[in-house]
Amino acid sequence: MSETAFDAGEFRKALGAFATGVTIITTRGADGAPVGLTANSFNSVSLDPPLVLWSLANTSASLGTFRNAEHWAVHVLATDQEELSSRFAKRGIDKFAGLEFDTGRGDIPLLRGCMARFQCRTAFQYEGGDHLIFVGEVLNFDRSDAAPLVFHSGRYAHATKRDSGAAKPRDADLAGSFSEDFLGYLLGRSHFSFFGQLRSSLEREGLNDMEFYVLSTLTLQPILKDEDLAQGLPGIAEERRQQALDSLVMRGFANSRNQDGVAYELSERGRRAALKLISQAKALESKVLEGFDAGEAAALKSLLNRLLGAVDTSADVIWKPKH
Amino acid sequence: MSETAFDAGEFRKALGAFATGVTIITTRGADGAPVGLTANSFNSVSLDPPLVLWSLANTSASLGTFRNAEHWAVHVLATDQEELSSRFAKRGIDKFAGLEFDTGRGDIPLLRGCMARFQCRTAFQYEGGDHLIFVGEVLNFDRSDAAPLVFHSGRYAHATKRDSGAAKPRDADLAGSFSEDFLGYLLGRSHFSFFGQLRSSLEREGLNDMEFYVLSTLTLQPILKDEDLAQGLPGIAEERRQQALDSLVMRGFANSRNQDGVAYELSERGRRAALKLISQAKALESKVLEGFDAGEAAALKSLLNRLLGAVDTSADVIWKPKH
Repeated sequence: MSETAFDAGEFRKALGAFATGVTIITTRGADGAPVGLTANSFNSVSLDPPLVLWSLANTSASLGTFRNAEHWAVHVLATDQEELSSRFAKRGIDKFAGLEFDTGRGDIPLLRGCMARFQCRTAFQYEGGDHLIFVGEVLNFDRSDAAPLVFHSGRYAHATKRDSGAAKPRDADLAGSFSEDFLGYLLGRSHFSFFGQLRSSLEREGLNDMEFYVLSTLTLQPILKDEDLAQGLPGIAEERRQQALDSLVMRGFANSRNQDGVAYELSERGRRAALKLISQAKALESKVLEGFDAGEAAALKSLLNRLLGAVDTSADVIWKPKH
Repeated sequence: MSETAFDAGEFRKALGAFATGVTIITTRGADGAPVGLTANSFNSVSLDPPLVLWSLANTSASLGTFRNAEHWAVHVLATDQEELSSRFAKRGIDKFAGLEFDTGRGDIPLLRGCMARFQCRTAFQYEGGDHLIFVGEVLNFDRSDAAPLVFHSGRYAHATKRDSGAAKPRDADLAGSFSEDFLGYLLGRSHFSFFGQLRSSLEREGLNDMEFYVLSTLTLQPILKDEDLAQGLPGIAEERRQQALDSLVMRGFANSRNQDGVAYELSERGRRAALKLISQAKALESKVLEGFDAGEAAALKSLLNRLLGAVDTSADVIWKPKH
């Protein structure tokens, strides 16, 4: 880390190093119209009396409204409210159009689906350079158990709980052993464990893991050329892919066609079997993810997608939708 | 969400819904001794002039020191600084013992390895109920590209970037299709893709994927009974496990022994091959994770470990270290 000359862009970046949740602050104008804006400058101040603060740019069109407001409400946004956050960060639109909301103290609009809502009465307004700092006394609040929307380094992020004990290799004797800290091992074990739970369903259809993997890949496009399949199934040895395809064709799950080379498509039977197994697999997924909150499940999928992007540069060839 | 009676514990929980980074604030006492504490009440206030704020409980032993301090510094902590955060949150210990630090404006101690550091001169001190709000003018700052330490709902968390485009099934025509939104598919594809990149190394040792998976599992304990192996390789059909074990024994990678039933251990050759492949696999892991920051890689592993805990309840049987 070296000292930086005082540059506004660099200063913004440095401030962005501090992760925050995202809030929407609402009030009503003198004309009774609901007013709201997105802010991440929120923080708690005091427990007794209960005080929170946030700050607003002196140049904001809403400054006058908030300066004169006796009441306002802070909404801490949940992970699925990114769109709401973006809407309330815009200018010149009717932010409340089509939104259902409750009303709180001072007739303040209260948005729904948030992690927490604080109904406040202005306690202090303090000078803060090019911003005004609003300190409010919390008159009332409510909260729900949801995953938070997080903002960091200028973009939205997921928050996921940390392990309480650091994930260390369990067999310290064998340096470099495979363990829960090694990604390849985690991927293999997760994959096998997950599909192990589906095995009896697969066996009822007479499918092994690889055949099911190929079958599910065939659901992604109406018809797939063999060379596209090869790219869509990276890391699978050619013989194993061919074996699985032959077996699927032989047993009536898929048809092979000639389209400038061999191409494969699901038969009606294959499509039915795939949909049935997919619904069972999705039920298993829901069960397995019960202990994850929405943000954590989304974070896991997002990280696996990025991992795939890194490990598997051919991914785009087949996975782009054909429209 | 229903309105809650005003209860201090519930209010704390509601405030905890707002995720924050973690900071350490430092200064020097009148006696010249370095002083510091952990705070998550930090936030940015103003760009021009550059102002930041944080608040400190009136009951804090350091209140007098900070009230009289002309300068103080804010350190935004990185994901690997959880221990430092806990140290500076304690009372009655020498927090700076053994720590190397730089010094900044006003001879303020500056900790190392942080995401960002702001050297400030007190601009305002404002009343904030049971806390005092410190607003500082930033005289100097520096930052580094690291992953943030995050605090949410009373515990530490990881932050991971969100996908810019939501991860939606790519083939919208086939309802319920496998796609990047389906966990089972992501696990399979990630696993196959990852090991596909190791295939040529495996082939040089004459091993297929399953044999390598069993070989790597055998590194976890000096000797493993067959029934423990069955639990340690969940989701693998018995025939496939047995086939791989027989092949490893036949080719001198492992020995079978009788220990109240069959047990397996690595041979010297098997151990050498495993270590060599493990180091190649770890090199691949490093390469694949290049686009992930430290917090994201840790989050991925932590989430996969939790997934394993959920999918695979037998995991503890074999994975507990034997000491």
